[in-house]
Order: sequence, then C-alpha cells, then structure tokens
Amino acid sequence: MFIYSQAANDSDTVSRKVSKVLAQGKTKFQEYLFFDSTIHGTCIALDGDIQSCASDEALYHEALVHPAMLAHPNPKTVLIMGGGEGATAREVLRHTSVEHVIMVDIDREFVELCKQHIPSWGARAFSDPRLDLRFQDIDLYLETCRHTFDVVIGDLIDIQDWNSPAATLYSQGFYQRLQKHMSDNAILATQAGPLVAGQLDGHNHIRTTLLSSFEHVASYGHVIPSFYHLWGYTIASKNAFANEAPDIYKQYVHRAKERNLDLHATGIPALSSAFALPYSITNQLN
Amino acid sequence: MFIYSQAANDSDTVSRKVSKVLAQGKTKFQEYLFFDSTIHGTCIALDGDIQSCASDEALYHEALVHPAMLAHPNPKTVLIMGGGEGATAREVLRHTSVEHVIMVDIDREFVELCKQHIPSWGARAFSDPRLDLRFQDIDLYLETCRHTFDVVIGDLIDIQDWNSPAATLYSQGFYQRLQKHMSDNAILATQAGPLVAGQLDGHNHIRTTLLSSFEHVASYGHVIPSFYHLWGYTIASKNAFANEAPDIYKQYVHRAKERNLDLHATGIPALSSAFALPYSITNQLN
Amino acid sequence: MFIYSQAANDSDTVSRKVSKVLAQGKTKFQEYLFFDSTIHGTCIALDGDIQSCASDEALYHEALVHPAMLAHPNPKTVLIMGGGEGATAREVLRHTSVEHVIMVDIDREFVELCKQHIPSWGARAFSDPRLDLRFQDIDLYLETCRHTFDVVIGDLIDIQDWNSPAATLYSQGFYQRLQKHMSDNAILATQAGPLVAGQLDGHNHIRTTLLSSFEHVASYGHVIPSFYHLWGYTIASKNAFANEAPDIYKQYVHRAKERNLDLHATGIPALSSAFALPYSITNQLN
Amino acid sequence: MFIYSQAANDSDTVSRKVSKVLAQGKTKFQEYLFFDSTIHGTCIALDGDIQSCASDEALYHEALVHPAMLAHPNPKTVLIMGGGEGATAREVLRHTSVEHVIMVDIDREFVELCKQHIPSWGARAFSDPRLDLRFQDIDLYLETCRHTFDVVIGDLIDIQDWNSPAATLYSQGFYQRLQKHMSDNAILATQAGPLVAGQLDGHNHIRTTLLSSFEHVASYGHVIPSFYHLWGYTIASKNAFANEAPDIYKQYVHRAKERNLDLHATGIPALSSAFALPYSITNQLN
Repeated sequence: MFIYSQAANDSDTVSRKVSKVLAQGKTKFQEYLFFDSTIHGTCIALDGDIQSCASDEALYHEALVHPAMLAHPNPKTVLIMGGGEGATAREVLRHTSVEHVIMVDIDREFVELCKQHIPSWGARAFSDPRLDLRFQDIDLYLETCRHTFDVVIGDLIDIQDWNSPAATLYSQGFYQRLQKHMSDNAILATQAGPLVAGQLDGHNHIRTTLLSSFEHVASYGHVIPSFYHLWGYTIASKNAFANEAPDIYKQYVHRAKERNLDLHATGIPALSSAFALPYSITNQLN
Repeated sequence: MFIYSQAANDSDTVSRKVSKVLAQGKTKFQEYLFFDSTIHGTCIALDGDIQSCASDEALYHEALVHPAMLAHPNPKTVLIMGGGEGATAREVLRHTSVEHVIMVDIDREFVELCKQHIPSWGARAFSDPRLDLRFQDIDLYLETCRHTFDVVIGDLIDIQDWNSPAATLYSQGFYQRLQKHMSDNAILATQAGPLVAGQLDGHNHIRTTLLSSFEHVASYGHVIPSFYHLWGYTIASKNAFANEAPDIYKQYVHRAKERNLDLHATGIPALSSAFALPYSITNQLN
Repeated sequence: MFIYSQAANDSDTVSRKVSKVLAQGKTKFQEYLFFDSTIHGTCIALDGDIQSCASDEALYHEALVHPAMLAHPNPKTVLIMGGGEGATAREVLRHTSVEHVIMVDIDREFVELCKQHIPSWGARAFSDPRLDLRFQDIDLYLETCRHTFDVVIGDLIDIQDWNSPAATLYSQGFYQRLQKHMSDNAILATQAGPLVAGQLDGHNHIRTTLLSSFEHVASYGHVIPSFYHLWGYTIASKNAFANEAPDIYKQYVHRAKERNLDLHATGIPALSSAFALPYSITNQLN
Repeated sequence: MFIYSQAANDSDTVSRKVSKVLAQGKTKFQEYLFFDSTIHGTCIALDGDIQSCASDEALYHEALVHPAMLAHPNPKTVLIMGGGEGATAREVLRHTSVEHVIMVDIDREFVELCKQHIPSWGARAFSDPRLDLRFQDIDLYLETCRHTFDVVIGDLIDIQDWNSPAATLYSQGFYQRLQKHMSDNAILATQAGPLVAGQLDGHNHIRTTLLSSFEHVASYGHVIPSFYHLWGYTIASKNAFANEAPDIYKQYVHRAKERNLDLHATGIPALSSAFALPYSITNQLN
C-alpha cells in the first residue's frame, strides 16, 4: 500500500492512503506529486507539501480570494501570483466587476500538469477571455508591468520552503516593489501557513514583512480539513478595511449581491467570522 | 522511539512522538494512556481516542462550557456528565452565578489518575466547595436525582466507541429522562465529534438524538490543534437561544462581564463566531 | 513523501521510502505496483505483497531455483509455474543440461509490465530459444500437457492471498495432477512464505499439502534482506534427495561444475547450509 | 495505540505495536525502554535500538556465545563485556567446563531494571556462584585485572551509537589492551551489527579493528526475527579455529556432548552453518 506522509510539525506526522499515483516528477522549479486519496480526491503536493485536495480546494481558494475581493469596493484589475491550479483565477473571475486578471506563475510545466490531471479546477478560468496567463518570474514581470492592480492574490507555496523560488516573494523588498503597482485602496491577500499556537513563526514572518509595507494587516483563518490545521491567510492594505465580524458581514453580503457572487463552500457567515481568531493565537501574533 | 498513532478517518492516520509514557492501563470501564508529547504536553487517550492535551485543553473545555453557560441568563445549578479531568468543572465554576455543580463520572479510577498526572487541570475545581463529585452511572444517578439543572454539560467520550459505557448516553431515551431534570430555559451542551464534511455521521447522530427531545439545536465548532480537526459541539434547549454571530457576541460580552468571566484561550469573538460554520458542513447537517 | 507500507505480521509493519512510482494498476488477475526505493532499487508488489526488489532478487531467485536443479542429476525439461519477472527462467536456463523450459504464467499483462520496467531481470531468458512461455492457467495447461518434467519450480504469489488465482495452486488436488507430469526422480521446489517461529501457518500449509503427494519434503530458508524475513522454500520428490549440509555441499559443487554454473549472489556454501534451520523453526514444522 | 518505531536503514522503518510500556527512562549511561509486544514478548531498547526481545533472545544469545565457547577446547575463565540482561552469562554458564565468569557492565541501574522486568532471562546466571558481576567501565577494569581469559564475549550496544559509552570499546587500542588478558588460544566473540549487503559499514568497522589485533577473524550470521535482519557476529583469535561447515559441525557436536550442552533455540546444525554467508555479503567484507 502506498502512503503519502508529511510532517505536521516537529512531533507529528499525517499519513494518508494513496489509492492511485497520477504523476510524480520534477519540473524546472519544483518536485510535484499528483495522487488520489479515497477520502480527499486528487491531491497535489509540491516539494513535499500538500497544496490542495479536490475534497476541499474550494474552501481553500474561496477563503484565499473572497475576503480581499469583497474588501475592495469595485475590483477591476487583479494580479494573481502563483496559483498554478487555476482555482484562484476561477474564484477571482466569479466577481462580475473584474475586467482583467493577470496570473503570473513561473512554472509552465506545473500548470500543464494541472490542466491534465485536475482539469475541472481551472477550466472556467483558463478559457475566460479576461484571464492573461504569463509564465514568468513575478519579480521580473513587475519590472516591466504597466498595470495598477485593485487586488493582488498571493497563492505561493508555503514559506517553510526556503529553497523554493517563492522564498524571495516573502521579502520586504518584493512587497515594496509590488506596492508601486497597487492602487491606493488596493488589497493584497496571501496564504500564510498554518495558524497553530506555538507554531506561528512562518505566519509571523509574513506579517512582519507585510507590516513593513502596509499600514493595515489582518490575519484570518479557515479550517481546510485535508491540511489538518487551521489555515492562515493575511490581508493587507494602505487603507483601513473592515475586519470585525458584524461590519464585515454586512459589507460582504452587500458586495456579493452586487457582483452576483454565490459562495458554495465557505459562505459569507464563515468568511466574515474568519477574522475572529482565538486568543491562544492572537496572543502570539506580532 | 515511541509513537502514539490514531486514525483520523478511514484513510489518514496521525502519529505523534511520545517523549514519556506516564501511565497505561485499564480501569473497570476503559483503557487509558497518559503520555507526554514535546509539542502537546501531557495527552490523555481513552479507548484509543485522544481526549485532551495540555497544550490546548483550555480551548477544548472553554468551547465546550461557555457557549451554554453564556446562553443561560443566570445558571445556578449545573450538571456535568463525565468530565473526569476536572477541567470542565473548572470552567463551569468560573461563572460567579454558579451555586452548585454536580459532576457524575462513572470512573473513579480514571479521575484519580487525572488528579495524579494532570493535577493542575482540575485542582481549582476539585477543591471548590460548590462541586459535588459522584462516581456513578449517570443514568442511575438521574433515577434518584431531585435537582433541576440550568445547564447540563456532556463531556463524554466520542460516539464512535459503541462498546464504551457512554454509548447509551447518546440515545433518545436518555435525553428524555434527562430533560425532566432540566428547567424550562435550561441549556444542554455536549461535545459532538469532528466536524468534517463527508465524515459527519457521528455528529449527525447526536443532532438527530437531540432534535427528538429539544426544539432548538445548534452546532458549532472550534479548532483544537492537537485533535487535527475542527471539533464539533451541540447546544440544545426547549427555548430559543441566540445563535447568530452579532446577537451572540453582545449577549456573551454582557453576561461575561456580569459574571466576571475572563476567557483565556478562546475569547468571546472566537466563541460567538463558532456557530458560523461553512456551507460545506451546514449542507450536510441533518 | 511516498511510502510503501506492508504488514510483516499482526504486530509489525515495514515502511519504505519510495523515490519513484513506476507503474500502479490492476491487470485482469492482480493489483501491481512497480516503484523505486533508494535502497532496494526497483521493487514489485502484487496484491499488496512485495514480490522482488532489484537489490536482492538474485538471492531470492537463486535460492528458489538452484537447490532443486542441483538435486536432480540431469535436469532437461523444466516447468515454471508463475515467475512473471523472468528471473526464475533466467536462473533455470543457466544450467547447461536444460533443453526445454515451459513457463506458464496466467498474467500476460504483468509479464509485459516486467519486460518494460525491469527489462534486465528476464532479458536473457525471454530471448532464449529453450524457453516456451505460455499465458494460461497452469491447471488448464496441465490437462493437455504431454511433457514429463525433471524439475518443477513454483514461483507463485504468497499463500496468504486466498483470493488470488494462485490459491488453488497450493491444494492437494493440484499437486496430484501435477505429479503425473513429473518423472520418477523429478524435483519440485516452491517458495513457501516467511520462516518465522510462531508465524509458520502459511509454510506449514504448503508442507502438509506437499507431504500428501510426495514422500520426501524438505524446508530451507534464505535471508532476503528486502523481505525483512528469513524466506522459506520447500523442495519435494518421490525419491530421497540429499538434504544434510556436507552431502549437499559435495553434490552441489560437483553438479555445478558439470553444468558450468557459477552462482553470483548466494553461493554453494550458503545454499547447502540453507537446510540447517534453527530448532526454533524445525520444532514448529509439521 | 502506542507503536515502537525504529529505522532499519536510511530508507526503511519497522513499526511494532506496543501492548504495554513497562519502563522508560534514562540511567546515567543510556536511555532505556522495556515494553511488551504481542508478537515478540518483552522487548528492550537502549538509545533507540532494540537489544533483545523475549520471543527470540535465546537465538540471539546462543548465537553470540556458543560458537566462541565451542571453538575453544576447554574454556574455564570467561569475560563478558556488557550483557546486562544476564542472558549472555546464562549461556556461558551452561558449559560445564566453565569455572569463573567475570561480567563487567558499566550500568548497574540497567541490570537492576533487567532483574525486575525480565527476571527469567538471567535468573540462573545471577544466582550462579561462578558468576562475578562488576559494575565498572571495562577499560578501567582491565587496568587492574589479573585474570587471563579463555573466552571473551562482547555483548555491547551497536556500533552506530558513537556517543554511547561503548564506542571506545570498538577501537584498536582497546582490543590490544584486552589481548593481554587473553590466553594464547583464547577466543573473542562479539555481536557485530546487521549483515546486509550495501549496509556493512558497521560490521566492517569491527572487522578492521579486530583484524589489527587478531590473526584470525571470521564473520557469521543468524536471523533474529525481531531484529528484521540477518544479525552479524565476529569471532577472533590469535590461533586458527574451525570455520568451515563440516569441520565446525563435528567439533561442535563433540564438545557440546563433552560439556553436556543442549541447545534449545539454534542447534548445532544452524550454528555450524552460520559461517556460510552468501556471496552478496562476503564480497563486501573487508
């Protein structure tokens, strides 16, 4: 029997039964695994970290995309950094206000593998004329980019992988360069590792980096069952944004209606509650 | 190296390093393990299921106790079913309104082991004169019980263990007998297994059972990191109670202040958001 | 990280790191896995049981084939039952006395997979004009078979898999039918599961079955490191054969020289000692 | 469920179910675990390495002791280095020729734990008046030792643990000091780690060290099922000793009879065959 095994932290390991290995190899940038788990459907791991599983990728991607999109009054131009599965773009494009999405992923081969092995995840996005998909280093892309973005979504691999091409994308310099391409009330959202008391180094590193470039930074979390953790995200902006439950709720309901947005997996009650983290975590955030 | 291993579901297993085995054996009623994990502190397992770990038992017990206690305007008499570690009683007794707590746990030997191996968890409770601790079958106890309770807390082992003495405590008959000892606006809360889409049989069994006896039943969840799941709880009452985020929040803040209750691990924002479950779960609740 | 995990017995499990999954699927007859392990090279599992690994398949196949071949004074016609990897045939064909080898394996698709993924194992055999390879149920084959064999080698999957097509091949009826195709001093050898005191049910089942058809039956064992057990084999004949160390040694040396046979992995000292099992095992053989 | 997990090599890990943890802690010298496995009985691990299990400790200790004892024509004075369980002494004392056994183990606390948790293993030895048990560093002991030994048995923990107090006991200097206390035809035997092709560094290190002090060194192996490896031993002497199967067999039979020695677990056929290692191993010995 094949088992996919991944450390959850220094002490614990989660092992999952693999019913079928779909693809295993190395692109120019990263090692990939695509496999089926009876309980999670098709799962994708990059450099030894589960990225998404079919059973709950909608939770992960809705929680990544919609708080930032709904925090902005009228997002038209959106930048996606990474997001090779196509599911982040799919969620962004559900907002009818959106006119132009630029998705920059360094790894063309990985995106091709996703189109082959998880075609349903990104199909609607990849065929949407509003999507402009570029295979490029995001930092190089920004050098020549002439756009100003309303929302930026970072769907990069987890920060613990310091050897990955994504490591510099969590640096202060990068966010300062990025900010030049963000409109004044633009919102940045990024996945930000597990939210577990005592294991917040990765998440706090992202917070520190963002706090050096943005005046307003908020953390929120959503359980992604196949990750076996409360998963952390951060949202950041030069300007203030709603981040307390009752206010968020009203704003989200109003804007979702405006944009004809119907959430399937998370829901506005769950997303607007996602900022109410327990003290055991907030006490340890920097 | 010793490892504590437990299935999370049909596919996945969580293995945790054991730095020290403290106690292992069988009482008249159940098999117990007390062990230290570097990352979770002392952990307790009964019949192969982790019950609580020092690192986050406060999350588990606060989330179990306070929503029910705060949903009641003035809880004076409280019944705890199970709760051998003493931590459930500890949380109940933090409400200054409480005059009398009857804790009924069938397993005296397990409670003694808890006093020995995790003395700090229940110390304040076991020495509190308001606590009346009885080692008895809860169903037998109710036969002769003359009290009427404002709040009942079920801290019993998980429903998957059908051979455990706790199995009948999840039956309709039991809740009907119990209800005779509950005042009209009394609130029942019980832990109710993991809240994971596709794995809700246990949780739904409890809901069905409660719905047959109580008019109002609500589910809520809180992440307990050492359980590796969003953990489910249910709250039930003959009368309606607040269970939408903004109302709950105001009510909880007001009553907590009245009772001088200061939450350390969860917090009122987190607890009042705990009812806002994602659609992926609410769609599968019965 | 992928891990291949297999129970060694009711208590213990061996997990091995998988560096690359080569093939995984189901033929008409069995489930197969081909994967690379850094330490064992390419490994093959059928129905959840490791069959052979590149690092020590030579040990396994030499120990299976040569004792029977060397116990016969002049083996010309040989039947191989199973043996899809081609390595059993390769070892048989190294005896220059051999004129005709009939290999009957029910699973054509598995043999094709072996040719693709482990070509070096069976190459010499599959191209040898003395090999007659048939994809057929061995029992059906015997019905119309006109040959009489000097040596019969059973390289079938392990007896614990009672649902496998090989299960009937371990029955008394089968061996009685087979015997009609064996010359008077013909020798039968078969792999016979792990030789571990307290876990000899599988091995003893084969012994019982063979003892009902053959007057002389002997067990021997060879360590196959990637199996993590002393592996058992049985040899059987109507006539007596040498099975005590000094006699075997002389006979093997003499016949190996005659047939120009040079053992690479095991060696005649190791093979002639393989019958000297410890009392902890012989005490439990039936 | 508790599991005892130990790496077999860089790739593979063996996990065994633990039915009961008996003792776990740290003496002045080493970390110990005593636990029950349903399949192996009580097992002992030191510094993370299984030392012996009840199910096959007789195999391990017979294979360690008797080849050296039977290679000597009349062993009267025997030195045991380590051997805290008492089982090595037990086997040595079964030779009626033996008059005086000095057992030097550095770890008094570990020996006490063995007497408590596995009393039957060493009982006969610890109460035998011929046994002289000293808790001392063996190297210090030798400085003042006035004895000359016929047989020396090294039952020390495995060489992979370079931080253990036993590491220097595998050095050339030590064996040269030891040799001064050995009679001319004295025999040394020591356990020497797993005998697995491609993983012979530990075993070869011992061979190199012994070859620098003794003219004759031979390796042999015996399967110890609970170790999941062919286990290696070395025997060394200034003078030649029988180490080919037929000669050994005759010598062992003769001397065992003389000394009224009856082997229960291994047997003289198995022990005299133990030197016939496969070429896959002998090709890699230095």
